[in-house]
Amino acid sequence: MTPEEAQAGLDALRGEIDSLDRQLLKLLNERAAAAGQIGDIKKQMTMAIYEPKREEQVFRNVLDHNQGPLSENAVRRLFERIIDEMRLLQKERNSKEDRR
Amino acid sequence: MTPEEAQAGLDALRGEIDSLDRQLLKLLNERAAAAGQIGDIKKQMTMAIYEPKREEQVFRNVLDHNQGPLSENAVRRLFERIIDEMRLLQKERNSKEDRR
Repeated sequence: MTPEEAQAGLDALRGEIDSLDRQLLKLLNERAAAAGQIGDIKKQMTMAIYEPKREEQVFRNVLDHNQGPLSENAVRRLFERIIDEMRLLQKERNSKEDRR
Repeated sequence: MTPEEAQAGLDALRGEIDSLDRQLLKLLNERAAAAGQIGDIKKQMTMAIYEPKREEQVFRNVLDHNQGPLSENAVRRLFERIIDEMRLLQKERNSKEDRR
């Protein structure tokens, strides 16, 4: 591989990653919107916000479908972060509404 | 909203989230594969693995395209986790190869 070929390869792969990241971002925002709607229903019905059983289902769903190269632990850590961010967003929204 | 309507709404939204999660997982694994190819090229060319400037581009790309509801900080934290996991995977692969 010449340095020029290496650079062309890197550029192409980086373009691919940028495109994947924009798709990931779109899905993450869609997920946050759906989680927000769940929070709204729960609030209206005064249901418990946190349901550990549902959380286990979320992990099961992704772990059962993981084909790699990410490891099971990596997938778990990534979705822990995703779930945490959705919960944080919901908390911020609720505390804003409570202050009104 | 009756309790039955609330439950139906929650079930539909959870189905949507499960589907989004499977799509997220697929994109995350595709991203890991592309990052792995970048690592291979860099290793072959003995280039620096860590490039802080490229990392800034990755954040710029997603922050410039973020339409919410996730905040800028949330997006940054999510992509920090994503980048960390890709780097960790690459490190594991390299150390396995070095042991051969």
